[in-house]
Amino acid sequence: MEKFQTETVYQAAKSWVLEAGEMIRKRIDDPREIDTKSNENDLVTEMDKAVEQFFANKIRTHFPGHFILSEEGFGDKVEALTGTVWIIDPIDGTMNFIHQKRLFSISLAVFHEDVGEIGLVYDVMADVLYHAKKGQGAYKNERLLQRIANAKTLETSIFMMNTLWTTENPYVDDVKVRELVKRVRGVRTYGSAALEFAYLTEAIVDGYVSFKLYPWDFAAGAILYNEVGGVIKQADGSPLSFLKQEPLVAGHPDIVDEVISRYLELK
Amino acid sequence: MEKFQTETVYQAAKSWVLEAGEMIRKRIDDPREIDTKSNENDLVTEMDKAVEQFFANKIRTHFPGHFILSEEGFGDKVEALTGTVWIIDPIDGTMNFIHQKRLFSISLAVFHEDVGEIGLVYDVMADVLYHAKKGQGAYKNERLLQRIANAKTLETSIFMMNTLWTTENPYVDDVKVRELVKRVRGVRTYGSAALEFAYLTEAIVDGYVSFKLYPWDFAAGAILYNEVGGVIKQADGSPLSFLKQEPLVAGHPDIVDEVISRYLELK
Repeated sequence: MEKFQTETVYQAAKSWVLEAGEMIRKRIDDPREIDTKSNENDLVTEMDKAVEQFFANKIRTHFPGHFILSEEGFGDKVEALTGTVWIIDPIDGTMNFIHQKRLFSISLAVFHEDVGEIGLVYDVMADVLYHAKKGQGAYKNERLLQRIANAKTLETSIFMMNTLWTTENPYVDDVKVRELVKRVRGVRTYGSAALEFAYLTEAIVDGYVSFKLYPWDFAAGAILYNEVGGVIKQADGSPLSFLKQEPLVAGHPDIVDEVISRYLELK
Repeated sequence: MEKFQTETVYQAAKSWVLEAGEMIRKRIDDPREIDTKSNENDLVTEMDKAVEQFFANKIRTHFPGHFILSEEGFGDKVEALTGTVWIIDPIDGTMNFIHQKRLFSISLAVFHEDVGEIGLVYDVMADVLYHAKKGQGAYKNERLLQRIANAKTLETSIFMMNTLWTTENPYVDDVKVRELVKRVRGVRTYGSAALEFAYLTEAIVDGYVSFKLYPWDFAAGAILYNEVGGVIKQADGSPLSFLKQEPLVAGHPDIVDEVISRYLELK
């Protein structure tokens, strides 16, 4: 089994993420580019694909033995996290990208032999990089983020969720989700799962639920959050596979099990 | 009737908002200050009061004939917007202030003879000032924000609301609010009403509902949003008084009336 070259892969990943971010920032305000599109959704598809292809080309050139699990079709058919697997969302928070031109992110994780080794979440427009190497802590730019230390209750927690989970839906009992909303101190909705994991890692929020995320939405964020002692599980309490769409809960270790047992009834 | 000195009042208000923001930024990371408090809520109360008192002192010194309508008790008993009235929230987004140390704002409006003349919303930690003088457009720092021009439907709108409105509550029929959530393209929740009005004014979101805001939460934001052609009404369609707690809807002119008639059933 090949030894994983953490630092080499990390430096490459980081430089490509920053380069892709620069590319997005340059193009996001280009009126000619936007004017030529027939509708807003064309733009994001093209940008999503361009950024994912950029990563795919880089990875296949520099690390030809690695695999890619990604959203837009330039990756591989990945059915296990053996060997080295890059899990990439070129633009996480598509609606924010189109409507707000901010609050979206590039999400990039690297797994090696089933272990999440590197996580990068890049807030492109704010030029803020959240990054972690397994066992070495999570950083916001140059600042080491603190491990979770203080006790927490649901009553003093801020949760994040898509507001749709409070309405009737095919994934989870919405009545119980609304009970959770009433129990916690407050709810926030930002629209980029990867950034929301970064905010968990910063501890400006304490919990997160979502029921139809793909690995590229949460893999990098999970690696970040793990470094500060955060808990990430499937919504039924089992471990995540990082291979398929999975309902999940993430949060402060004091509160996750109660959320699962009392408020998340999957359909 | 005294003529309103728009530019004099605007320059004073702006300089005091920036000065107060600087004061908050200096104290927010002071560990001694935070450590001496018995709990998080003490800190915000003290900061709220200190900032409001700062404004009250300035206004009473420089504009002794003006009135103050504000949250923390340093203002006047204001029952009409005759004369000149300053409407102030020293820290809008208290929960964000305590838990996140960002995404809160100073909200300051000046009314003269029932007309909103000046609106300032200051994102303190980002150092971004949204500002407007009636009839002269709304600005984000130095940048003039565009007037609403494109058509909009609910299906292509992003709405903002407190997630609690989707749960049973004493103010509005939550079933219909959930129908609205399903109809729109997406929902965001940021936790500062004044900043949420600023985001409306930037057109990164298209609609907003809330049912227990006070004038200090929305007066400055309403003046900003009015300058780009946004609509702000009570949730039953009547005009706002800016004198008491009022349920409200704000949004793109194409969508507000449909929201009121189909989705907002007040209790």
